Amino acid sequence: MTLTGDLLIGGGRVPATAGTMKAFNPATGEFIEPEFAFGGPAEVDRGLRLADEAYDSYSHTGLEERARFLELIADKLEAAKDELAARTSVETGLPAAQFAGEAVRSAGVFRKFAAVVRQGRFLQAAIDPAQPDRRPTPRLDHRLQKVALGPVAIFGASNFPISYSVAGGDTASALAAGCPVVLKAHNAHPGASEIEGRVIQEAVAESGLHAGVFSLVRGSGNEIGEALVDHPLVKAVTFTGSEAGGMALYRRAQQRPEPIPVFTEMTSVNPTFVLPAALAARAAEIGTGLVQRGMYNVGQACLKPAVLLAVEGPGYAELREAAITEVQKWEARPMLTPGIHDAYTRNARHHQDNGAVRLAEGAAPEGSEGGAYGQALLLEVTGEQLLAEPALREEVFGPALLLVKVADTEQLLETARTFRGQLSATLHADTADRATVEQLLPVLERRTGRIVFNAFSIPQEVSYASTHGGPFPATSDSRFTSVGMGAIERFLRPVTYQNFPDDLLPQPLREANPLNLWRLVDGELTRQ
Amino acid sequence: MTLTGDLLIGGGRVPATAGTMKAFNPATGEFIEPEFAFGGPAEVDRGLRLADEAYDSYSHTGLEERARFLELIADKLEAAKDELAARTSVETGLPAAQFAGEAVRSAGVFRKFAAVVRQGRFLQAAIDPAQPDRRPTPRLDHRLQKVALGPVAIFGASNFPISYSVAGGDTASALAAGCPVVLKAHNAHPGASEIEGRVIQEAVAESGLHAGVFSLVRGSGNEIGEALVDHPLVKAVTFTGSEAGGMALYRRAQQRPEPIPVFTEMTSVNPTFVLPAALAARAAEIGTGLVQRGMYNVGQACLKPAVLLAVEGPGYAELREAAITEVQKWEARPMLTPGIHDAYTRNARHHQDNGAVRLAEGAAPEGSEGGAYGQALLLEVTGEQLLAEPALREEVFGPALLLVKVADTEQLLETARTFRGQLSATLHADTADRATVEQLLPVLERRTGRIVFNAFSIPQEVSYASTHGGPFPATSDSRFTSVGMGAIERFLRPVTYQNFPDDLLPQPLREANPLNLWRLVDGELTRQ
Repeated sequence: MTLTGDLLIGGGRVPATAGTMKAFNPATGEFIEPEFAFGGPAEVDRGLRLADEAYDSYSHTGLEERARFLELIADKLEAAKDELAARTSVETGLPAAQFAGEAVRSAGVFRKFAAVVRQGRFLQAAIDPAQPDRRPTPRLDHRLQKVALGPVAIFGASNFPISYSVAGGDTASALAAGCPVVLKAHNAHPGASEIEGRVIQEAVAESGLHAGVFSLVRGSGNEIGEALVDHPLVKAVTFTGSEAGGMALYRRAQQRPEPIPVFTEMTSVNPTFVLPAALAARAAEIGTGLVQRGMYNVGQACLKPAVLLAVEGPGYAELREAAITEVQKWEARPMLTPGIHDAYTRNARHHQDNGAVRLAEGAAPEGSEGGAYGQALLLEVTGEQLLAEPALREEVFGPALLLVKVADTEQLLETARTFRGQLSATLHADTADRATVEQLLPVLERRTGRIVFNAFSIPQEVSYASTHGGPFPATSDSRFTSVGMGAIERFLRPVTYQNFPDDLLPQPLREANPLNLWRLVDGELTRQ
Repeated sequence: MTLTGDLLIGGGRVPATAGTMKAFNPATGEFIEPEFAFGGPAEVDRGLRLADEAYDSYSHTGLEERARFLELIADKLEAAKDELAARTSVETGLPAAQFAGEAVRSAGVFRKFAAVVRQGRFLQAAIDPAQPDRRPTPRLDHRLQKVALGPVAIFGASNFPISYSVAGGDTASALAAGCPVVLKAHNAHPGASEIEGRVIQEAVAESGLHAGVFSLVRGSGNEIGEALVDHPLVKAVTFTGSEAGGMALYRRAQQRPEPIPVFTEMTSVNPTFVLPAALAARAAEIGTGLVQRGMYNVGQACLKPAVLLAVEGPGYAELREAAITEVQKWEARPMLTPGIHDAYTRNARHHQDNGAVRLAEGAAPEGSEGGAYGQALLLEVTGEQLLAEPALREEVFGPALLLVKVADTEQLLETARTFRGQLSATLHADTADRATVEQLLPVLERRTGRIVFNAFSIPQEVSYASTHGGPFPATSDSRFTSVGMGAIERFLRPVTYQNFPDDLLPQPLREANPLNLWRLVDGELTRQ
């Protein structure tokens, strides 16, 4: 497909109204053709009016029709995977093979949501039949299903240009819920965004859906994102990125005349706790695993295990040595954008200003100094330092890892209590660590959306039991996940139909259960 | 039980630190003994510290233990029902029999949530078993359950002093979720609040739970509510009341360093649409039913059908006559507070200033003029007026009803599209109205949490298929309901346990399914 650089609004391609940009190759420092259009509030308005027009028909598509649409996106995404991977590689400086895999996984996510749609459990159909003879008052027939919220604004993320961007899980789950999508493409990968966006746009057209089901806009600064969040027709927002960016959008949306749900996934250091027996038994394995997991995607991953805490004692020196050896093997690689690289350098320096000792760094390849190359970095502090300086518990986005040498298990528990909300926490523990594990688990449960036992979690699973969420500031609403089948719940609300004649009820609620759904009838799950 | 007027903090009674108040009898205009304590931010802080301390143990109570605790509250509430009804009647000027019924229904709500807790479906347990041989990457075992958010701040409402107040559905659903509660009692019924609060406090003690599971505070102005919403240990807020009050709390909570979920249920006129064939067939029945439903609780009900729209034509005059006759039968009754009465008088006058014609009013009993008596009022406007003046589509809290004489079904659809979000909408329609119904349903579905067909819904059902929610400004988050079994979802968040040894997993997620729960295993519902 030849990139045109246009915005994709409804079924059409819309040229620039507010200037243009070119993509940047962080590996070479060069700009790449073609020019990509910037739009403004007028294009946002146009996309949202179309999305609002599309809502009535799209939110009422049959489950089978909607599932097939999602599968068509999956097929087209897979068909475009080599082209998409090649372009994404140029726009990120990361290997094409990584993105071919990411495209296949994203296609898989659309297929999984197609299955979710077909199962229809997301509708949470519930029926409380009439009880005309109930005293003192009869009960009317009540039937509940979930319906789509309305048009959703999705901000593409920079760090995973497919799976957290245009054809990512946010789009898949919003479309699965029956919500039209207006997507703000991230300027770090405009070509990848266009390929993904056109895949979805084509699938909309071939499925015979209203063209307003999907639009893609792009802008030069904050204005376009603000126009999107402010627009009265937007009914929900998703964002993955920095705490500052996420909170600005969140607070803005809450000050609208009509506040709307905003799910932002922001920051997490995913602390790893290594308990004494595990440390004594597997120090080198853990130290190596930490670095291998931590360097994935040049450390630009929400689940990077950024902080590892272990009690000083048998194994600690060995863990440190293993981590040092592994970090030294890592060659610097281009980071996603020059801005991210600058922030990385600055934040890594701040950690050292705050007392973190540099244990090791990765190699800097010939000629990488002037570019946006992120150099691996292993830092160390004591538990006491971590307790005293909150900034050391904050994220350094990029290939930096922090070892924390903790005095004893008492101090380990104390440090655990100081962390803000996290996407995940990891425990490495053996049988002899049981008593400490039992003390630590409730502390971690309060602060995280996921607890991992004796593993470095790779990659993010997209399944029914996934949680990619957690207490603030990991996300802005811990009640939801942005990854996994539960992500659809962000975009649904209940509606009750009371005393309806059967033939006016939505299909999922009709007496004969024509869709063969699991439904809650008088509080009992049944397919009858 | 002898009322002491104390605040109830943790297991203790705490005397006034910021002045006192007495309850007001709106029927007699007299103040009633005893004095009730006001507290301030220090008491809020004490209650929340205790709630936070209680969180770890209370949120991990076994399902059976928690269910029995809720049932004990129900038993005690029922045992106190006559005393509670008598006091509530004096504090509201409404009949004691109404409150005896409300106490029994509230006890029923606690029992229903006990059943929800025992079923354990609210945990939404999901298991994705390990797939060690999966390529390219193995899958680790993932298990998800919902956990309690943390301490919840609940604002007692004025209009239903039991079911939307201390021992109401918000408290029942938060406690069912495993969240400790700090409740701000409404000053309109301090004695009822104390009785209900002591019932819960006793049940906490007798169940051997941490005393911080429940506290009740009271204050003279906004300060105590603000302290509650601002407190860093509060993890969610619920409120039922005016749009101005609800939005002030909502926006305040979203400006905290850590924003928290706030569910406010605010305003709704619950429009009723009478279609031509139904109007021709049952005009008098609908007109009478409208007024009877509308006058319930002196019109101080969130589901009051405040606006009825019908097409001018056969039956309209008859409907109007029936409504007039019924309104004239209604004697003025005391409203909940002098403030609510003043607002009612003012808002009813505004409607008339905006062109609404007074069709009829209820009788004013001897000597009611100076008091807080709300006089029934039936107003009328044309569809054109309603379209032109948004204020006519807003709530007048109290016993006023607005008839809208619509020119044709086209105008009926047009007016339907102008309403803001509603808790409910009602359709009266016959077979011949089918085409209009099909046009109207998607319009109403967008704007409401509930659609009622050919009925005036009384009372609010508390069941699995209930929705008491809806798009803004009916509530601040249409994704949730505040009444019905789904209300528990406001207070829960998912946590995933990854690669855990079985004996460290929470009971609901263990391989043997010891609690015999419905669980989603690899995407399929099963009890295995």
